[in-house]
Amino acid sequence: MSINRRVLLRRRPHGLPVAADFELAAEPVPIPADGEMVIRNEYCSLDPAIRGWMDDVPSYMPPIPLGAPIRASTYGRVVSSRAAGFAEGDHVVGLNAIEDFSVSSAAGFTTRVDPAAVSSPTQFLSIFGAVGLTAYFGLFDVAQPKPGETVLVSGGAGAVGSLVGQLARLHGCRAVGIAGGPAKCRRLLEEYGFDAAIDYRGRDFPALSAAIAEACPGGVDVFFDNVGGVALEAALAQMNNFGRIAVCGMISQYNAAAPVPGPSNLWQLIARSVTMRGFVVRDFLPRFGEGAGAMMGLVSEGKVVFHEHIDQGIENFLPSFTRLFEGTHNGKLILKLN
Amino acid sequence: MSINRRVLLRRRPHGLPVAADFELAAEPVPIPADGEMVIRNEYCSLDPAIRGWMDDVPSYMPPIPLGAPIRASTYGRVVSSRAAGFAEGDHVVGLNAIEDFSVSSAAGFTTRVDPAAVSSPTQFLSIFGAVGLTAYFGLFDVAQPKPGETVLVSGGAGAVGSLVGQLARLHGCRAVGIAGGPAKCRRLLEEYGFDAAIDYRGRDFPALSAAIAEACPGGVDVFFDNVGGVALEAALAQMNNFGRIAVCGMISQYNAAAPVPGPSNLWQLIARSVTMRGFVVRDFLPRFGEGAGAMMGLVSEGKVVFHEHIDQGIENFLPSFTRLFEGTHNGKLILKLN
Repeated sequence: MSINRRVLLRRRPHGLPVAADFELAAEPVPIPADGEMVIRNEYCSLDPAIRGWMDDVPSYMPPIPLGAPIRASTYGRVVSSRAAGFAEGDHVVGLNAIEDFSVSSAAGFTTRVDPAAVSSPTQFLSIFGAVGLTAYFGLFDVAQPKPGETVLVSGGAGAVGSLVGQLARLHGCRAVGIAGGPAKCRRLLEEYGFDAAIDYRGRDFPALSAAIAEACPGGVDVFFDNVGGVALEAALAQMNNFGRIAVCGMISQYNAAAPVPGPSNLWQLIARSVTMRGFVVRDFLPRFGEGAGAMMGLVSEGKVVFHEHIDQGIENFLPSFTRLFEGTHNGKLILKLN
Repeated sequence: MSINRRVLLRRRPHGLPVAADFELAAEPVPIPADGEMVIRNEYCSLDPAIRGWMDDVPSYMPPIPLGAPIRASTYGRVVSSRAAGFAEGDHVVGLNAIEDFSVSSAAGFTTRVDPAAVSSPTQFLSIFGAVGLTAYFGLFDVAQPKPGETVLVSGGAGAVGSLVGQLARLHGCRAVGIAGGPAKCRRLLEEYGFDAAIDYRGRDFPALSAAIAEACPGGVDVFFDNVGGVALEAALAQMNNFGRIAVCGMISQYNAAAPVPGPSNLWQLIARSVTMRGFVVRDFLPRFGEGAGAMMGLVSEGKVVFHEHIDQGIENFLPSFTRLFEGTHNGKLILKLN
């Protein structure tokens, strides 16, 4: 392969991204400068967070510059290296972009991995990557459930949410998931072992709040929120005293064309002495080894169920990425570039 | 005095309370049953929280029932007692009501106090009562500022806010207050020693956010929020990574006739890994002695400035209470019943 196909951001999406927001460019394969390596990407992780990086708003990372490739975590092989500690042929994961070849330095997030240690290298982008670590640290460090407590999870059928529910159950908690549509709710119960599932579709704030109350007769001790919006508002209304909300994502509003008002009942934070804590998995970088080790242990013991949805072809970036917002995938969404 | 004047809740206020929401009733002086005492109230604490108790919404306490007297903390003397541990003549503070005589049991919040230990018994309703304890535990336990950090306080000229700013300064923090109008802002700087003051009047979200950015060039590490609404939205936009928001009150919306949307930028919780924690001072009940002791030490050393605004006459309950929302008082608002 002598060209580098790259998905570039041509303009900032207004609402749901459309084709004209992107350009599939063909550029020369990069050559590493001193201290750099060039990685041939095989798999790219498609995450809701990427949608946020396309906007020009303050966040935990700078926006993707216009004209730059779409930032994403990737798995690939080093094809040439002038970076200390990395050699041609090394398998690596890192924060790169939707492109055939990425330039990286040893100082970045790039980490060498051993594909012989896993059943599929895509697992470095899913259960042993940010998804698994987000579920692990978000649940145990941010939300801190105690055995016997009720853990409510929005986006319960999603990559992170399905793991959170399973981890909560393994921890001795009652796990209740919110998901969109009867098929996903069935998956929550039958595949992931949630104690109860709530379909948010067609339910406004009072109806969703009532459904949560019914599924959580003892109230909600922990809410792990991937969604925001009405799910957050409805959960706030059912929190127990000293409840904790792990604020992991707000996918319900990533494609909003205008600012979305927050929940009308933030007063519940005071009424129930609730703690609401936002986080990104990067906060736990020094402990990634611990988290990945814990997830590897659970997987090797067969204690967690995890799915990947792998689409193929860099030219299919947009329809694949759109699945995240339409929910037409099952499991961690990954794009195989070739 | 042979009658018990009581301010009863006749209907739930719609917006700012008006005279027709209340009735000043004259009832017989109560007689204690076994286990009870009767307290003659001298001073009542008028707090923003009382407005919340008038609404029929879920909160940390049941709503005041229609026809019942307005719940409030009071200072008074026991005039007859059949409660173990309390005798006629004891001075007590407790959660009673706006009425000349309250019936209380030893099992309630009623505590014996020694007026000889303070320069004015009203201090049991202000700096050594819920106000001082709210500032102390809210700042040090909920928000946990570190010396050198920037602490932003909304309602900075209020009873709680003015103390929070002073405690923050004594702790080695930079204290920035938000208040309404130039006179209050001057008080923040000249009386309470804040490092900077921001007038929220006439400023919308972007303008208030810009003013906070200017007053807090290193960002906001701790936001102690008594106000909610635009103040919360503007502060969210200026939080530093791992910032903490102590959610103490939302006075901006207590009189709202309809639900008020929350901040449009809750995303900042994720973007900056911010923790937002609601609390009520009752959460720290087992440690009230510690908190009151700490405040007494500071007062005796002359390290904190504190004001009380005392209105007189139970018949003036409504105009006095209304001050809380119009800001026409300076310091802790207290109603002397006679």
